[in-house]
Amino acid sequence: MSVHFRKLALIGIGLIGSSIALAARRQGLVDVISIATRRHDTLEEARSLGLGDIYTLDASEAVRDADLVILCAPVGAYGALAEAIGPALAKGAILSDVGSVKEHVLKVVGPHVPEGVEFIPGHPLAGTEHSGPSAGFAELFAGRWCVLTPGPEISPSQTERLAAFWRAMGSDVECMDAAHHDMVLAITSHVPHLIAYNIVGTVADLEADTKSEVIKFSASGFRDFTRIAASDPVMWRDVFLTNRDAVLEMLGRFNEDLSRLQRAVRTGDGPALEALFTRTRTIRRSIINAGQETAAADFGRPHDTPPPVEPLIVRDHGGGDDA
Amino acid sequence: MSVHFRKLALIGIGLIGSSIALAARRQGLVDVISIATRRHDTLEEARSLGLGDIYTLDASEAVRDADLVILCAPVGAYGALAEAIGPALAKGAILSDVGSVKEHVLKVVGPHVPEGVEFIPGHPLAGTEHSGPSAGFAELFAGRWCVLTPGPEISPSQTERLAAFWRAMGSDVECMDAAHHDMVLAITSHVPHLIAYNIVGTVADLEADTKSEVIKFSASGFRDFTRIAASDPVMWRDVFLTNRDAVLEMLGRFNEDLSRLQRAVRTGDGPALEALFTRTRTIRRSIINAGQETAAADFGRPHDTPPPVEPLIVRDHGGGDDA
Repeated sequence: MSVHFRKLALIGIGLIGSSIALAARRQGLVDVISIATRRHDTLEEARSLGLGDIYTLDASEAVRDADLVILCAPVGAYGALAEAIGPALAKGAILSDVGSVKEHVLKVVGPHVPEGVEFIPGHPLAGTEHSGPSAGFAELFAGRWCVLTPGPEISPSQTERLAAFWRAMGSDVECMDAAHHDMVLAITSHVPHLIAYNIVGTVADLEADTKSEVIKFSASGFRDFTRIAASDPVMWRDVFLTNRDAVLEMLGRFNEDLSRLQRAVRTGDGPALEALFTRTRTIRRSIINAGQETAAADFGRPHDTPPPVEPLIVRDHGGGDDA
Repeated sequence: MSVHFRKLALIGIGLIGSSIALAARRQGLVDVISIATRRHDTLEEARSLGLGDIYTLDASEAVRDADLVILCAPVGAYGALAEAIGPALAKGAILSDVGSVKEHVLKVVGPHVPEGVEFIPGHPLAGTEHSGPSAGFAELFAGRWCVLTPGPEISPSQTERLAAFWRAMGSDVECMDAAHHDMVLAITSHVPHLIAYNIVGTVADLEADTKSEVIKFSASGFRDFTRIAASDPVMWRDVFLTNRDAVLEMLGRFNEDLSRLQRAVRTGDGPALEALFTRTRTIRRSIINAGQETAAADFGRPHDTPPPVEPLIVRDHGGGDDA
């Protein structure tokens, strides 16, 4: 048995779904790609991009005879989707997903998985702030982690088969318990997104004059936050609705630390501030060393070159006189 | 009078100072660059990089006969520096700086500025997370704002002369009141940095096992924050010590909003979450339209290509059997 699948069904075709379609095709991992999505215009967009072979608005139609089915819709839609496709899933198929939370997914999808189908939840830790079928690209998963959270009833050979599929798209694969995944992701992803959304929201509430200045001068730090806070709203709503406990736990720690930091600013505690700011620098170095980030300054953002030297003569004022 | 200066003295030669040296030289804006810094090894590093013409540990020596002097040291050092160089400043010289706060700078430097010298505080809104003389590059200021905060006693012709110098290095220049600068920067820069330092600090306090997983899986959002939280610790300590009131005011707003958002997560208020997450998306679009950010996904970070297609045969398991 090779990593090859006969028919891949993608239920949902946003950034992640379309990237899987492109990567699986390019790497020759599947014969047929079947795409289902809820909205007609999204389906037509996928068709015009040539992402698959079969296009349908009926998810249960899409999964027929598929040996690999991946849910790529917002997590909030999983329960209804699983109920709809459950009876149509082929015996021996692997059912997986790409959702950002995993315990909730086991809970809402699990009951609808028929005997003979192996449900192996997955989460590729990859994405950009863009969404929709046209946002995908085949390189999205290269060098990024994909976490699988198979239950104890899943055969290791099937997990390995799915892992090989992800590795072939460039991912590194790690298996862990669903609850542990949700806790780690609350820290690395969910709370950072919440914080970014919050600060951008604070700015959005400023008076119009100030807001336009903030936008103008955003390159001094704020704009980094806006990238994260430009991620897909429905997907992120569902993350916070379905990983509440882990998010609130980590947010509690963040708030405690922020109170302490606020006090250090208020009391002018220079040594405490400098100590924190020095400690945080080493974390970034670790991330770069772990190959999860570019060492290039400013994320490797493009920097313009200065304009060519012009005849830089300005008005000839008398020294110190007003113009 | 042209934009040309005979002798530029840079007091401090970190990321910003070294970038000014490189940009001013490349654009032919000065004849002589004189560099002073407090530490011997930093001075030697600047010398080995060929950043200037004159190198000294004595700031008052560096400014002698200079017609443009720019303080590029941490703001906390300004008072002592101004006291030291004040008597040595040449009549007719322009004294400026690059510090991230401006009211405080007027307060601590102003009293040491002798008659006949024009003190025009400045702040280039440019930088990366790297620091030190070797971090500088001539393109740093291209397409970035430089804010000048001249007092009412400064002649517009001198302000224009300094503005032309920054424009020649690629900056757009804006003049504003020092207090207004400090408020706008508290929002766009200081509070975002504080938040980023805080969340990275929260992670730094996690148990070793969890921390290593957070680093491993950081690409899911957290790593963006670490870039900001890797900025120069002493510079940022001084920012929070000297722009306290504006920072605490904005931090108060951020905290109010975060409490409300936390409640929305706790009560599972999906519509409120989705509404905020949709609203914040438009702010990023405005920043991209304002030319302050790249529209490329993920800041234009490099994405690897997936590995070449390999003979993707895995072990031949019987269907469903354990390996």
